Amino acid sequence: MAEKPSKQDVEEGLAFAPKFDADGLVTVVATDVWTGDVLMVAHMNEQALRRTIETGEAWYFSRSRRALWKKGESSGHTQRVTEMRVDCDQDAVWIKVEQNGPGACHTGRKSCFYRAIPLRQVGAITLEFHDAAKTFDPAETYSKPE
Amino acid sequence: MAEKPSKQDVEEGLAFAPKFDADGLVTVVATDVWTGDVLMVAHMNEQALRRTIETGEAWYFSRSRRALWKKGESSGHTQRVTEMRVDCDQDAVWIKVEQNGPGACHTGRKSCFYRAIPLRQVGAITLEFHDAAKTFDPAETYSKPE
Repeated sequence: MAEKPSKQDVEEGLAFAPKFDADGLVTVVATDVWTGDVLMVAHMNEQALRRTIETGEAWYFSRSRRALWKKGESSGHTQRVTEMRVDCDQDAVWIKVEQNGPGACHTGRKSCFYRAIPLRQVGAITLEFHDAAKTFDPAETYSKPE
Repeated sequence: MAEKPSKQDVEEGLAFAPKFDADGLVTVVATDVWTGDVLMVAHMNEQALRRTIETGEAWYFSRSRRALWKKGESSGHTQRVTEMRVDCDQDAVWIKVEQNGPGACHTGRKSCFYRAIPLRQVGAITLEFHDAAKTFDPAETYSKPE
């Protein structure tokens, strides 16, 4: 792909031209292929993108650890990618995954989105637990934080 | 909320303490409440978050226009939020929405994710159109780009 594809090419073309941010990352949304629930929002750099495409298993880039990271490398909770899509301006990727093991979240839950923000409220917001039951014990599962 | 809540408070507590990035933004994933499809990935600043919570309609912050933006303000394709969740480290929000009108994407489609990245391939990637039929004509719909 040429260095600076046109907006028309990026939005309407079939050339994969990921638009990395200043840190070299695109945003990734992983949804559960069976339930449609959002499991996690994370990031991929060019290498994580390539490995995910090549292997069909989810790889990410950890911003906190500044490291390439195969999902499940310490927990065993890998993600098999069943479908991968890119958005109009190619700075975000959506993967549908089969989540292996009891959950995707490092806190010990199926999804990272286990708290609801109540709507149509003014003033201070108190979250509400939704689907927040722990499905595994992260202290037992992780030898190092994911 | 105190200035620097602990990791434990952020992940396990019920205080809403959004973790804004250097630009004052959190990442937002909007999914279709009926199909579960990801419609778009965008951003909210503190004001967009507050207006979304107060009104139950999706407000975003446009990075390109540096402006608060009510989804559908020019197209009429507003989003009624049926559920709003925050993730473990509170830097990402998931909203389930009822998308009004024929689509969410400024290119004239239901979802921004209308191209698939083929999996288990090595080398150059050619995207494939999936669900890419245009459901409206953006030139007719927008008086200004959304």
